[in-house]
Amino acid sequence: MRPIGHVRTPHSRHSDVPKGRGAKHVAEGEIVVYPEFEQGLTDIEGMSHLFIIWGFSEADGFSLMAHPPSDDRPHGVFATRSPRRPNPIGLTVVELLKREGNVLHVRGVDMLDGTPVLDIKPYLSSIPAEKLSRGWLDEAEAREEDI
Amino acid sequence: MRPIGHVRTPHSRHSDVPKGRGAKHVAEGEIVVYPEFEQGLTDIEGMSHLFIIWGFSEADGFSLMAHPPSDDRPHGVFATRSPRRPNPIGLTVVELLKREGNVLHVRGVDMLDGTPVLDIKPYLSSIPAEKLSRGWLDEAEAREEDI
Repeated sequence: MRPIGHVRTPHSRHSDVPKGRGAKHVAEGEIVVYPEFEQGLTDIEGMSHLFIIWGFSEADGFSLMAHPPSDDRPHGVFATRSPRRPNPIGLTVVELLKREGNVLHVRGVDMLDGTPVLDIKPYLSSIPAEKLSRGWLDEAEAREEDI
Repeated sequence: MRPIGHVRTPHSRHSDVPKGRGAKHVAEGEIVVYPEFEQGLTDIEGMSHLFIIWGFSEADGFSLMAHPPSDDRPHGVFATRSPRRPNPIGLTVVELLKREGNVLHVRGVDMLDGTPVLDIKPYLSSIPAEKLSRGWLDEAEAREEDI
């Protein structure tokens, strides 16, 4: 695995990234693809949304149980977005605003500035919201509403 | 990077995997997580859908331009799901049918049998279909309809 580029975001520290329930990822940023990979962006400008697969550059080991900011109970790491995963891979869906050569201007970045990018893929279909269950996260939200 | 498990699917050859426009990924399979990572699945059973991040074990180098089966024109690899990518990472959304210990029974596998799994993440939100543009894929479909 080697970076194909990096992300420019307004988040220089973990505390800058909105987290937890109701967090909106609306920050704008740039995916800077290294020039030798620029041809791979051909025709990407027609896509409204992209998957960005990236590396947690600051992850320090992993833990099979995670304590997500959206709940006061721990959950298995694979049921959360915790950075402390066996393989330090992140996944973010961004909206593509504009392409300028090897730079993609996007909305929805939740990575730290300088994060290495491993892959970019087109977002081609959605699971309809009414078919989606989010397990512990739905339950945590319901408990909150009961208070 | 090291596998956290592997996928059992009905697809033993590339030609077994439905491809191209209108391909439905409804095949059922299993994500077999290695026992040492099983605790990381805690509470995942409430999630209806998951992202599976996996490795293309048979990918042979990469090409910045791809010829997807859904079009007769080439496109940049990052605007396609081509396996021949700079980093051989695959991403598939599956529906979680049932968890049995370290085995997740899922629908929607499009990987070859035995594919190594790198990460599992919860699918927590969708881009509404009406907000989605799919660029060259929408255009290829429109041309098809014009014929």
